[in-house]
Amino acid sequence: MDHKGRRLRLQKALPAHGLDGLLVTHLPNIRYLCGFTGSAGALLLTQAGSVFFTDGRYTVQARAEVKAAKLVIASKAPLATAAAWLSAHQQGGARRAAPFRVGIESEHMTVAARSLLAGTLPSNFRLRRAPALVEKARMVKDRNEIQCLRSAVILGASLFDRALDVIRPGVREAEVAAEMEYAAHKAGAQEMSFTTIIASGRRSALPHGRASQAAIPGQGFVVCDFGVILSGYCSDMTRTVYVGHPSAQARGVYRAVKQAQQAAVDAVRPGISVGEVDHAARKSLQKSGLAKYFTHSTGHGVGLEIHEAPRVAAGQNEVLQAGMVITIEPGVYVPGKWGLRIEDMVVVTERGCEVLTPTSKELVTI
Amino acid sequence: MDHKGRRLRLQKALPAHGLDGLLVTHLPNIRYLCGFTGSAGALLLTQAGSVFFTDGRYTVQARAEVKAAKLVIASKAPLATAAAWLSAHQQGGARRAAPFRVGIESEHMTVAARSLLAGTLPSNFRLRRAPALVEKARMVKDRNEIQCLRSAVILGASLFDRALDVIRPGVREAEVAAEMEYAAHKAGAQEMSFTTIIASGRRSALPHGRASQAAIPGQGFVVCDFGVILSGYCSDMTRTVYVGHPSAQARGVYRAVKQAQQAAVDAVRPGISVGEVDHAARKSLQKSGLAKYFTHSTGHGVGLEIHEAPRVAAGQNEVLQAGMVITIEPGVYVPGKWGLRIEDMVVVTERGCEVLTPTSKELVTI
Repeated sequence: MDHKGRRLRLQKALPAHGLDGLLVTHLPNIRYLCGFTGSAGALLLTQAGSVFFTDGRYTVQARAEVKAAKLVIASKAPLATAAAWLSAHQQGGARRAAPFRVGIESEHMTVAARSLLAGTLPSNFRLRRAPALVEKARMVKDRNEIQCLRSAVILGASLFDRALDVIRPGVREAEVAAEMEYAAHKAGAQEMSFTTIIASGRRSALPHGRASQAAIPGQGFVVCDFGVILSGYCSDMTRTVYVGHPSAQARGVYRAVKQAQQAAVDAVRPGISVGEVDHAARKSLQKSGLAKYFTHSTGHGVGLEIHEAPRVAAGQNEVLQAGMVITIEPGVYVPGKWGLRIEDMVVVTERGCEVLTPTSKELVTI
Repeated sequence: MDHKGRRLRLQKALPAHGLDGLLVTHLPNIRYLCGFTGSAGALLLTQAGSVFFTDGRYTVQARAEVKAAKLVIASKAPLATAAAWLSAHQQGGARRAAPFRVGIESEHMTVAARSLLAGTLPSNFRLRRAPALVEKARMVKDRNEIQCLRSAVILGASLFDRALDVIRPGVREAEVAAEMEYAAHKAGAQEMSFTTIIASGRRSALPHGRASQAAIPGQGFVVCDFGVILSGYCSDMTRTVYVGHPSAQARGVYRAVKQAQQAAVDAVRPGISVGEVDHAARKSLQKSGLAKYFTHSTGHGVGLEIHEAPRVAAGQNEVLQAGMVITIEPGVYVPGKWGLRIEDMVVVTERGCEVLTPTSKELVTI
């Protein structure tokens, strides 16, 4: 991964945002910028370079993972170490006319952490809420990242075969999830990218119905939404199967969601806004009168985090660029009755997009 | 669970902390105070009562779970809804001489969320960083909570039997973890309370070495640290086994850690500080010259969160009270060589403590 290049691009951008430094504290952002995978760290970017702060537990790991950035390891919490280092090394006063402006990640830093910083830094420092610069950079994946995502998607997709083996009337949803997660771990996944969703019968109408102790009924949809983490990168996919003999209505609704999902996939290309992609799915569902049951957004970015920018939702203006990786996951949910969803991960290419998820979207009946 | 009693006690305590209201946004605190288990909510406590805010996705769930508190469900994010409600219902100005002081949970609220609040509330409101009032209340568990913790501990402990079945030279650490997590899900655990740690051979010297793809070597310690969540409550335990034939030195080190763990357990009683409990473990390890290899704290509170107050560590002054549930988990780690740890959960009783973890601490060799 080109950690150094990523940092340099951000360092160059600081003045345009009125910042002399950026203090990165969100762990996925830290990993993206310097490769550190531990759970305690802070990364300071300035025009002069970058400094990574961690504590003694991570001495060996930080030396192995963090390249081409200055390392400061102390016994204190990384944020306190960063504040002390800044106070000592980034002098203002006589040698500097203006105060030193430190950007913080306000979406991630707690009020208590900000107070600690503000209480430690001398009076010639100013804390500024920085825009989401790292999240913005992370939206466009480079070749290495796309390779990692491809591998995660392939491993994740293999779990659906396990689900098909196990889903039967009477089997508990949690058992299906357990079998899938077991297969994931055996296949080398670090962990699941989120708690596996297996939602059957009426529970299929819950868009985020985690696998419960409920038994799969003899008839109805079973929504399977799952993903793995491999080399730090997340996969995310949903398939909905039907247990029993689907009615013409059930087949029709499935077809409508599949068409809406395809319509959104077909809309993905550089230059189009994420709001337009969302609209393509909704417009398709309007034809069958199902749009009102599509109660969530069409998708989201995926990478080091399972949910990251951009949000693929109504009213969002972010414009797609080649290299962005997003989910396309329309669904319809009739409360108390049934629901279904179909989700792929796609990477935006120069001319359109490539669907990363290899799994068929034909209706599987069990 | 006595959610109403918990809220009333906090409401009464607000004036003593200079607060007219407390805005609870940390999800485990919300669950503790009103029973809501969803992922989007905010709870406002004032002298007059309590109001819970959530969004439309949680209408059914909030109505089922949240008793005896006013419910406000809106399409906006709960924090924005709370801010709007406060502005409309909690008037200051002409009818109030002093501004309305709203306590926020500064250890959990982000700088961005605080800005949203500050930007929405009229000028007669003041945001104050509240002390950790809910965390403090949560330290002492009531009878229902202890029952939940007991059940989680028993289920968690059963996974160790699975580990003993599976741990063999050549088996990958991740496979052991996968078998244990599979057994947990089959037994009805909601999820693991943290990523299972299986650390064998040299990796046993990493206090937080997650299960890796490394094969268990023919000789050495294997640290197994794991837990489950049941009815929202967490379990946490560690046992270390030896694969192969342990040398006299290995047996001696194991014995020393076991004695240190017992010394700390024996120290637990109401009225003693957590720092003294930590000291009991360290003092015991000093006898065998191993104290310098005990590089983390002795334990932590466990409940709705896997790590909660109090920290059982050097320099901490929190005094134990009956009903507190903490871990006792000393370990020794010789970097690049080996490590081991033994961990139980204990509940402080009127006269001492009860060890909840049912599993033997004799050295198991495989």
